[in-house]
Amino acid sequence: MKKISILKPVLVSNQERAKENRKFFDKTNSLVLNIIGSPGSGKTSVIERVVKDLKSSYQILVIEGDIKGSIDSERLSKLKIDTIQINTLTECHLDAFMTAQVLPQIKKPYDLVLVENVGNLVCPAEFEIGEDYKVAILSTPEGDDKPLKYPLLFHLARVVIINKVDLLPYLDFNIKRARENIKGKNPKAIIFEVSASTGEGFEGLIDFLKKELTKRK
Amino acid sequence: MKKISILKPVLVSNQERAKENRKFFDKTNSLVLNIIGSPGSGKTSVIERVVKDLKSSYQILVIEGDIKGSIDSERLSKLKIDTIQINTLTECHLDAFMTAQVLPQIKKPYDLVLVENVGNLVCPAEFEIGEDYKVAILSTPEGDDKPLKYPLLFHLARVVIINKVDLLPYLDFNIKRARENIKGKNPKAIIFEVSASTGEGFEGLIDFLKKELTKRK
Repeated sequence: MKKISILKPVLVSNQERAKENRKFFDKTNSLVLNIIGSPGSGKTSVIERVVKDLKSSYQILVIEGDIKGSIDSERLSKLKIDTIQINTLTECHLDAFMTAQVLPQIKKPYDLVLVENVGNLVCPAEFEIGEDYKVAILSTPEGDDKPLKYPLLFHLARVVIINKVDLLPYLDFNIKRARENIKGKNPKAIIFEVSASTGEGFEGLIDFLKKELTKRK
Repeated sequence: MKKISILKPVLVSNQERAKENRKFFDKTNSLVLNIIGSPGSGKTSVIERVVKDLKSSYQILVIEGDIKGSIDSERLSKLKIDTIQINTLTECHLDAFMTAQVLPQIKKPYDLVLVENVGNLVCPAEFEIGEDYKVAILSTPEGDDKPLKYPLLFHLARVVIINKVDLLPYLDFNIKRARENIKGKNPKAIIFEVSASTGEGFEGLIDFLKKELTKRK
């Protein structure tokens, strides 16, 4: 009970700050995606594929949110794009204030800002950071019931990426049921089925992102 | 900053309440395991296997923590054991107060109480609930780097179960590196490699639990 009474004002002030962050990104017409998924769902691998496909045509920044360390930023820096690391320490999600703290490091206009949130299906969904929208990543080994068990994220995410479809032959994961579970929480969700390890299914996602980026030009 | 100053007193009072819960379980010499892992890491499937192997010899209770719904309790009730559901609603973890609320529902002595926490590697590690110890579940599709990225859980867990070893041939997951990453955070961690879908590796875990249960008799 104690925590609920604290959470509400925190969320309200977070939302105000998220609006300020949004104004910052709007100045450069940046498309900002808040990428949320479980630990090991393949957030970094999906980002790697997207960066490889789009970096010749677009200016891309990746903001990496992690409790500790910079394993993912180091992986991404090999792609020769700009990255910024946020370490959340005790916090299990990024919020608008943490995001605001790194805005002064953004010195040039980016077409696309990919924010990799902390691996967690719960709290990251509760905190806006100034994104255009949330992108949920659901990997097939997690099971097709996850949209039912973690409904807020799937309700809010405009795009849902079902990752690791290369593992489907070895799993009891039903794509049709997964889609129904997602659409049950969010009938307008745009769903892509991909494998970040084989590259399967990325054409659709890349086309979608290119259209989104063109709208902003 | 705001949140950190709030968190500390919340944790202190949580710990006091966890001690009270512990006293409750000590009256019946119950072994209480706080089972923590990512969404889809196989917590419920591991519990199913353990229950099947031990229910003829021991009284078992499963406490299911979920944001919403009761999918897992329904799965487990098919095994004809007692289950109690806790819905955490906005909270991403169980805490000692939520656990205390269901203690009055516990009407008989149980040898083994398996508490399935909310799927999350971060916050559940921060809140004691009155357990004997934490059991971390790491599934192979999540990657062998997760102990580095979510250190607190792996630091605190007495037992770490590496699940889904049947998928190893299809993944870039190095068991040796995973073990090193776990031991780096917690040299005393007891590690089991299992597949809840094939049953591989459960003998070791079941033997371990039987010994733990015998100590309490």
